[in-house]
Amino acid sequence: MTYPRVALIGLGLIASSMFWAMRRAGMDSHVTGYARSASTRDTARRIGLCDTICDSAEAAVRDADLVVLAVPVGAMGAIAATIAPHLKPGCTVTDVGSVKASVIEAVAPHLPNGVNFVPAHPMAGTEHSGPESGFASLFDNRWCLIVPEGAPEQATAQLESYWQALGASTERMEVAHHDLVCAVVSHVPHLIAYTMVGVADDLRRVSDQEVIKFSAAGFRDFTRIAASDPTMWRDVFLTNKDAALEILGRFTEELFALQRAIRTGDGDTLFDYFTHTRSIRRGILRAGQDTDAPDFGRIRKDG
Amino acid sequence: MTYPRVALIGLGLIASSMFWAMRRAGMDSHVTGYARSASTRDTARRIGLCDTICDSAEAAVRDADLVVLAVPVGAMGAIAATIAPHLKPGCTVTDVGSVKASVIEAVAPHLPNGVNFVPAHPMAGTEHSGPESGFASLFDNRWCLIVPEGAPEQATAQLESYWQALGASTERMEVAHHDLVCAVVSHVPHLIAYTMVGVADDLRRVSDQEVIKFSAAGFRDFTRIAASDPTMWRDVFLTNKDAALEILGRFTEELFALQRAIRTGDGDTLFDYFTHTRSIRRGILRAGQDTDAPDFGRIRKDG
Repeated sequence: MTYPRVALIGLGLIASSMFWAMRRAGMDSHVTGYARSASTRDTARRIGLCDTICDSAEAAVRDADLVVLAVPVGAMGAIAATIAPHLKPGCTVTDVGSVKASVIEAVAPHLPNGVNFVPAHPMAGTEHSGPESGFASLFDNRWCLIVPEGAPEQATAQLESYWQALGASTERMEVAHHDLVCAVVSHVPHLIAYTMVGVADDLRRVSDQEVIKFSAAGFRDFTRIAASDPTMWRDVFLTNKDAALEILGRFTEELFALQRAIRTGDGDTLFDYFTHTRSIRRGILRAGQDTDAPDFGRIRKDG
Repeated sequence: MTYPRVALIGLGLIASSMFWAMRRAGMDSHVTGYARSASTRDTARRIGLCDTICDSAEAAVRDADLVVLAVPVGAMGAIAATIAPHLKPGCTVTDVGSVKASVIEAVAPHLPNGVNFVPAHPMAGTEHSGPESGFASLFDNRWCLIVPEGAPEQATAQLESYWQALGASTERMEVAHHDLVCAVVSHVPHLIAYTMVGVADDLRRVSDQEVIKFSAAGFRDFTRIAASDPTMWRDVFLTNKDAALEILGRFTEELFALQRAIRTGDGDTLFDYFTHTRSIRRGILRAGQDTDAPDFGRIRKDG
């Protein structure tokens, strides 16, 4: 059973991909869309995103059976307050934020009785952003984490079916655990990548030109995720502070141990560490979560 | 002018790719190969790597016009001592190590007068290793840094032509600058990636299974380079200690500044930092050193 009317609030990479994935799945839902910026709305109209692009969030959510909040995490509370009086009784509100505790805290108090709030987090994305970056297969073979937090079972199950129709696998998770898992697999890796790129950019003794020219030696892998949307990531770190700081603390602890091994010439520690980390990569390949082609397949062996 | 006889000492990813690239270039050099392990030599014979696989390094270098040391950086000195008495007068010895100061220090004292030593560093690789991982196009559109360090101009120019025939662009660099540049674009990024993967693997509160399942959210990008050859990387850090520690010091300094911004809720600092790092990515794409396809092209948009 799909939702007859769906409202997408925010029209970036995730929402635009959801629209194309709904179309690919053959859903006949009527889809409204809203973005804060007029130029984003113009772009959305031009490329045929959604059935109707509305000039206000209030208009977009009217009569919607499913309302998807797809704005940066820091903007969730304000948009929830804006739309709350206009929500259809019995509708489901969900979000696509990368952090769950703070989104629930910001959104839930605004929602009227009789509206089902089922937070969700599709773990998919690319380094590109904006309404034109979306595509139908973004969620294929990816996970969408569902954090029901007391939502009715029927509303939760319906949202799961919806995400599965979009190509994702779903898994339910408790809110604090969600935020910790994401700090490990996503938030801290992004911060580390931003930092590494920032260091390279800031060195006086090595020119930007050199960093760019020779980036294929490892550095360029970091630049991809360090090119992700700055507003989204600022909000992630501001709102998942505790888990991010905990994992960062563990990271620096380990880094200092390896730094000490380098300083003291302790080759055995380095070798053992570097051997151990290979097994995680093998697990990811076995789970079908990455390609085994050398260099992510960027190299053409037949070149 | 190519080298009539080439000896490849060490038969891993780089040396095996050099052989296939020489064949692709139509070079008619006679190529001998040697690897320390008998099973590597057997594999090499089985897959047709080199014209002759020798059972000793001494035999492999006999009469060679170019001798390529393609062993881990920490093994360069010993192999240089072994082959030195058997080198043909006037031949060129080169290496493919990722560190140059310590390789020069380890190798140069062993080489007899009249042998030209031209250190080099092809900046190419994948996360795979061993004689079967090589392929002819590995060096296409990649850089090979040449560190002449007083070698005769003619021998240096000939080695440059050779690498260009294998697909690489060449650039000459001074030894200390080479080691610093590589610490930035390659060595420290690898250490950071190893550390991030180690942290994820070691957390009690998030299972390995979760880390693997949800790795596409950013983490998996780190696991690729953290799957690189442990012996090679141990030696890199032991031998490029000063530059690696310097860049690591800068890295932790920046990381602490961002960590402080998270702790104090300083969103402007985070936003500015995350905006700035995007420009480096754009430079890399403009320089043709990476693909602009979302997610390194791992996602099939037409899926």
